[in-house]
Amino acid sequence: METLRVELADRSYPILIDSGLIQKSESWDSCLPSTRLLIVTDDNVAPLYLQTLLDALGDRDVSTVVLEAGEENKTFAAVQRVFDALADTRLGRDGCLVSLGGGVVGDMTGFAAACWQRGVDFIQIPTTLLAQVDASVGGKTGVNHPCGKNLIGAFHQPRVVIIDTAVLTTLPEREYTSAFAEIIKYGLIADVEFFEWIEKYLDALLAQDEQTLAEVVKRCCALKARIVGRDETERGERALLNLGHTFGHAIEQATGFSEWLHGEAVAVGILLAADYSNRRGRLNDADLERVRGLILRAGLPVEAPRISAQQMLELMYRDKKVLDRELRLVIPDRIGSAVLQGVNDDDLALSRLLADWFEA
Amino acid sequence: METLRVELADRSYPILIDSGLIQKSESWDSCLPSTRLLIVTDDNVAPLYLQTLLDALGDRDVSTVVLEAGEENKTFAAVQRVFDALADTRLGRDGCLVSLGGGVVGDMTGFAAACWQRGVDFIQIPTTLLAQVDASVGGKTGVNHPCGKNLIGAFHQPRVVIIDTAVLTTLPEREYTSAFAEIIKYGLIADVEFFEWIEKYLDALLAQDEQTLAEVVKRCCALKARIVGRDETERGERALLNLGHTFGHAIEQATGFSEWLHGEAVAVGILLAADYSNRRGRLNDADLERVRGLILRAGLPVEAPRISAQQMLELMYRDKKVLDRELRLVIPDRIGSAVLQGVNDDDLALSRLLADWFEA
Repeated sequence: METLRVELADRSYPILIDSGLIQKSESWDSCLPSTRLLIVTDDNVAPLYLQTLLDALGDRDVSTVVLEAGEENKTFAAVQRVFDALADTRLGRDGCLVSLGGGVVGDMTGFAAACWQRGVDFIQIPTTLLAQVDASVGGKTGVNHPCGKNLIGAFHQPRVVIIDTAVLTTLPEREYTSAFAEIIKYGLIADVEFFEWIEKYLDALLAQDEQTLAEVVKRCCALKARIVGRDETERGERALLNLGHTFGHAIEQATGFSEWLHGEAVAVGILLAADYSNRRGRLNDADLERVRGLILRAGLPVEAPRISAQQMLELMYRDKKVLDRELRLVIPDRIGSAVLQGVNDDDLALSRLLADWFEA
Repeated sequence: METLRVELADRSYPILIDSGLIQKSESWDSCLPSTRLLIVTDDNVAPLYLQTLLDALGDRDVSTVVLEAGEENKTFAAVQRVFDALADTRLGRDGCLVSLGGGVVGDMTGFAAACWQRGVDFIQIPTTLLAQVDASVGGKTGVNHPCGKNLIGAFHQPRVVIIDTAVLTTLPEREYTSAFAEIIKYGLIADVEFFEWIEKYLDALLAQDEQTLAEVVKRCCALKARIVGRDETERGERALLNLGHTFGHAIEQATGFSEWLHGEAVAVGILLAADYSNRRGRLNDADLERVRGLILRAGLPVEAPRISAQQMLELMYRDKKVLDRELRLVIPDRIGSAVLQGVNDDDLALSRLLADWFEA
């Protein structure tokens, strides 16, 4: 088992990574803060892994709530269902929520834990590759509002993240592939050597080679843990992790949170950010082509959906990074390095970028 | 103008107290963190003070949402309306919410601010005596769940608390009186000299003598600021501020959050806690009688509503202070001092207390 740590003073916690970890409760049992638990999962994951987890939890006092799967169900109404379950089971301040699922379930469970009785413990058991390399670490929780993605939420750190890489064998291929957008993102913003490593091992990763998979999860979590440890509430460096997300969230929203997977939208978003950077004379042509090539090889989309440029611009302005009506975009300036840049809506490079990628 | 401070490192903030303060924007203008504001108020307060506040805010970019007044409307659904207003106005992370109202509006505005974009600024302008002496200070925010009071919420401190004692002249008498439960509470748990001061000046306070009123607001806020500064998230001492609230919340809930005002329920709750303490041989008969006498003189109820003892016990067990199925009650042991005590449901003194005060 690999163990990493997110260092946040009294809110520090371990990330445990191993194949078959859900069943190996002896490895994480001592990390659970409570014997009273509410598991939150969804109707995709429950038939596959809920019983395994219940068995591993032994004779603890466990209740379960099963939500509808899908980003379009990451709503205030779904969190209300979790609150109702918490009320039914009378889970007190000494109880603990357990998220068993992908990023959607993890974000909602964490948000419910942040708000229930003004904050109770929760743990993350991510069951998608995307949640394992990104969403389960760092304490960003929340739900979507009809007007924008993740507009309602809280920073609330889990007590432990339990990553069982064996569950990925049952993950639909499209879900699996979508994680590569976030994986490539880490290399692009922070670590040129990791970017090269992905280029080298992408085929093994796509073939789900167990050892390479464990390595990529570990490297992504280590990068994220380092950045979150230095900037928990995104006052600076952490914003770089949003590379491609301002574009990506707008695409997700314009397509109703159901057509495009988060990772797919982020893949196109990364390309848009790279193209923008190239137009502004920062990222050179060769690097742009390398980014495009890697996204293409991963099987991710490299073309935008049919949305108007005007709608994209409007949706991008709902992003949480907009300050004083100025858009702030994460811009890769070379492979392994990115910056946060203010962009006004009269920015010519942005208008041309959107005009070239989107409909009139 | 009196100025107090809640000392919480980078979340410290001032409490400003003066008659007519809403109009005197020169006194607080520099405390506002933003020029983009959303005022949240209710349909009782809006006709009285919204225009005054809007005038004082000058040419800032201000939107408004008016909620239905009353504890029974302190719900997730009402907060959703605030989110919708925030989305409509596209208030960004650099924006600020303004609560103009009593404790209900303040709790919901603070909770919306805690969750919107994972946390934006808010300020409190409390317009009831109860909110001025208690609810507006300390960053407890939240809403009720059908299963219990304040079950969903967050700790989120305001940037400034602006207390205009002149607005109390329009407060209905019953609302005004209800605040005395919290005022008496401060003396009883923490300050015998203040308890004596209340006994001495109660008539002047009930007659709304301006100077005495300013003094009582200042003393209560100073006591609360001191306790919150030492224990922001209620890991210890702050729990004492809940004297009477486990009983009180149960009464509020059993009566549908509409028959009894919060302060009225807390008044009876304080008497129940004092009686319990007396039965356990802690608070002596003379002190119990002094507490009862003061609550009676303040015009607050000293008898419980018609609820069964069994229902009271069940509702009390939904309290946030229940740990590991043990009730934790705040017990005054003499005037000026209280402790937190674990009580099991087979506690004889508790059964007898409830049997004596409530229906079979």
